[in-house]
Amino acid sequence: MKKIEHIGIAVANLDEANKTYTSLMGAPPYKTEEVTSEGVITSFFACGESKIELLQATTKESAIAKFIEKRGEGIHHIAYGVTDINGELKRLKNEGFKILNETPKKGADNKWVAFLHPKSANGVLIELCQDRKIPLK
Amino acid sequence: MKKIEHIGIAVANLDEANKTYTSLMGAPPYKTEEVTSEGVITSFFACGESKIELLQATTKESAIAKFIEKRGEGIHHIAYGVTDINGELKRLKNEGFKILNETPKKGADNKWVAFLHPKSANGVLIELCQDRKIPLK
Repeated sequence: MKKIEHIGIAVANLDEANKTYTSLMGAPPYKTEEVTSEGVITSFFACGESKIELLQATTKESAIAKFIEKRGEGIHHIAYGVTDINGELKRLKNEGFKILNETPKKGADNKWVAFLHPKSANGVLIELCQDRKIPLK
Repeated sequence: MKKIEHIGIAVANLDEANKTYTSLMGAPPYKTEEVTSEGVITSFFACGESKIELLQATTKESAIAKFIEKRGEGIHHIAYGVTDINGELKRLKNEGFKILNETPKKGADNKWVAFLHPKSANGVLIELCQDRKIPLK
């Protein structure tokens, strides 16, 4: 894993959460993006080489809506930046991790993304992220 | 906030979790440290400019023991690296955040640390970290 690409935080109200995180980080989000396929609207705050991603559900079926219903607002996932997502998925599958997306899908912020099941990683939902500017291997 | 200093993950069994995270990160922990005052034993994995900190409780009264009893294993806190922890605490208090430690305390990995209440920050327990090599202002 090259770096922590971002930490995803499930929030109930993105406008309110943007105000809180603008105070916390000392700067506003640099980007807001809707990912229709995931039923979320997101905002991104820069923090060193990483980002904080706030996620609000736009549909009841969205994973974020279900997460908040079950556990309330809070940290939803950790995303690690990788340069070869397919290679890492293969490696981690061999190491015994349960892969949720065998084929990377298009995520927010121009990334190829794939998730590992929290049961494989001490209750933590893990996302792998590869920049879409880098061709998939 | 300068960077994500580390992400703290509550685990039930540090030896087992170290094996999982060695597979995930592709390298073993660079450090293991017991923080008696917090009732935890921790291990640290490098990841870019950040770290993953695994925390296992050593006492039943430890915050980590209570967290796992209530929610199971998972992400416990996000720690942001700052260069002036007292200045940031003052600033964030003025911004309306609920400060759990008005005076920074000694944390793992040679840091001054202080926590913000999750209720102030969308369900996320936030730690501020200042290197103890930098004198407190």
